[in-house]
Amino acid sequence: MGKVPATEAFGLAAKDESGVLSSFRFSRRETGEKDVRLKVLFCGICHTDVCMARNEWGFTTYPLVPGHEIVGVVTEVGAKVIKFKAGDKVGVGYMLSSCRSCDICTDDQENHCPKMIMTSGGKYYDDTMTYGGYSDHLVCEEDYIIRIPENLPLDAAAPLLCAGVTVYSPLKSHGLDKPGIHIGVVGLGGLGHVAVKFAKAMGTKVTVISSSDGKRDEAINRLGADLFLVSRDPEEMKDAMGTMDGIIDTVSATHPLLPLLGLLKYKGKFIMVGAPDKPLDLPALPLILGKKMVVGSMTGGIKESQEMVDFAGKHNITADIELISADYVNMAMERLEKGDVRYRFVIDVANTMKPTP
Amino acid sequence: MGKVPATEAFGLAAKDESGVLSSFRFSRRETGEKDVRLKVLFCGICHTDVCMARNEWGFTTYPLVPGHEIVGVVTEVGAKVIKFKAGDKVGVGYMLSSCRSCDICTDDQENHCPKMIMTSGGKYYDDTMTYGGYSDHLVCEEDYIIRIPENLPLDAAAPLLCAGVTVYSPLKSHGLDKPGIHIGVVGLGGLGHVAVKFAKAMGTKVTVISSSDGKRDEAINRLGADLFLVSRDPEEMKDAMGTMDGIIDTVSATHPLLPLLGLLKYKGKFIMVGAPDKPLDLPALPLILGKKMVVGSMTGGIKESQEMVDFAGKHNITADIELISADYVNMAMERLEKGDVRYRFVIDVANTMKPTP
Repeated sequence: MGKVPATEAFGLAAKDESGVLSSFRFSRRETGEKDVRLKVLFCGICHTDVCMARNEWGFTTYPLVPGHEIVGVVTEVGAKVIKFKAGDKVGVGYMLSSCRSCDICTDDQENHCPKMIMTSGGKYYDDTMTYGGYSDHLVCEEDYIIRIPENLPLDAAAPLLCAGVTVYSPLKSHGLDKPGIHIGVVGLGGLGHVAVKFAKAMGTKVTVISSSDGKRDEAINRLGADLFLVSRDPEEMKDAMGTMDGIIDTVSATHPLLPLLGLLKYKGKFIMVGAPDKPLDLPALPLILGKKMVVGSMTGGIKESQEMVDFAGKHNITADIELISADYVNMAMERLEKGDVRYRFVIDVANTMKPTP
Repeated sequence: MGKVPATEAFGLAAKDESGVLSSFRFSRRETGEKDVRLKVLFCGICHTDVCMARNEWGFTTYPLVPGHEIVGVVTEVGAKVIKFKAGDKVGVGYMLSSCRSCDICTDDQENHCPKMIMTSGGKYYDDTMTYGGYSDHLVCEEDYIIRIPENLPLDAAAPLLCAGVTVYSPLKSHGLDKPGIHIGVVGLGGLGHVAVKFAKAMGTKVTVISSSDGKRDEAINRLGADLFLVSRDPEEMKDAMGTMDGIIDTVSATHPLLPLLGLLKYKGKFIMVGAPDKPLDLPALPLILGKKMVVGSMTGGIKESQEMVDFAGKHNITADIELISADYVNMAMERLEKGDVRYRFVIDVANTMKPTP
């Protein structure tokens, strides 16, 4: 696309591997013919933001403006935009663009397109870095914008754009979204608590599997899970063996797979959405004897993202959030690292994020 | 079924954890109404036979008569048998019976039925141990008998009953049996060489992946593989990254998964049919980023076993075998442990197995 005129923007950026965020001024491109400009209202803090800010995966380019759970209001649309108009409540998730022509894009899985451009920390067609939602405004092609249902509170809807579709997508695509199905959710954090809500709304039976008993009451009485299993309790685990059709494992710390695979029925599906950085021990025999499957899943495509928020609107599903001001973001990231949040931090961008004087 | 009159039989049995086989006399039940009695002609030696003879999995009951790659000729049928008659050439694979009523049996996957009775080392309804095909004759319910196509040589067809269906079943059930598909076969042994033959006959492109260069010529020029990759050659592996739709991993020794998962395309399927006894390192990120799947598979059901040998008959597929006499079986098992066979030992039972004087 080449260089285009730009407008001023501000936000919070990590500037080195300390991962500490501080004020940052930069520019956004002008609203192109097919672009939508939005004022950011809220942005969720995903664990990925922490990993990227600290360059834990080794491919971060600084300065990095994190944020891919973005909800905002449209302020301007390009001449050829047909789906959105100023004033619309919209969201932007993990990606800003993709090639639109490969088999994967045709399969509506743009999130796996080799040319997919991440909302934060990617490189756009004009060779500029992409800066995410920890910022005052954003410009995005209309095809990658999600419409937020009117009935959802915008702050608590923000995490749906990543956490929501990350758990919704594999439940749908692996046929685990029907009454009669029994789903296990490993880990009750940002992803897990949303997984429980979606799976219950789909009519499945849901068991939360946690390493300690601390969240039992929360899981059952507040989130509506049917059962709660402590993974360190051999008796509880034994009683539940062979009972589940699918398990969504949201844990990103290294943990044993063998007892979890034992919970699955014949042909059961074990879906990894957390991403431990060290390899997990994979026992072959349980997979072979039970024809079981271990499969990965990462966010979701645009079509299923829209389907997911529409489903969330219909069933009043949002994340449980702690709304924070922009100046709390470094503290929030530290707390997130320790799992000290129920269940997602969301930055109140529009009300609290200020440009440096 | 209770106790029934029995007939004398003889064979070779392991009597302790040394796994050494020696002559053994025992009895078979009379031919029941729905039973088929067959004279064993040939029996393949599967790696499982060695593991079971030595109690490597901890559930062997001695004496153990191994053998579940059985080809023979029908000598007698029960009054209600409708599919077979004396003189028919038939096969018996991994199982002798199952419950016929559970969801898994209804799904034609009797091999995964919780009540499935193994051909060797299982317990039959009358509480007798099941003795396998290293024996002069066998009695089996007609529903678990496979008809061998007329054109196949019976000795080289024997390994199809286990090795054949073990590789055929996952290729079919995971949609990896079509022209245009690219299949990787890891390990060129008893399972691997048959996998190459089936995958080629299905019209797919086949790449053999081996830890050394030793079998390159054999794989390409004799078995008809399209490509050969040395897994220890980083350059060759790098060039092949992201090119395969499915991989059948037949290796039962512990080995790294990461480079193999890298060979798969988006949504690629990694099928484990070998069974390493130690856990393998499973890296989560390649599964998540590529929506890839690791799945186990074990032999196959009766319906797909019949379909498999019919397909083999149509395409003249058999195993490459070394035909041995019964008194060579202990030596053969030692050689099998070292991978010193191309590619499957088959015992010439009818001509060489004698009862102790």
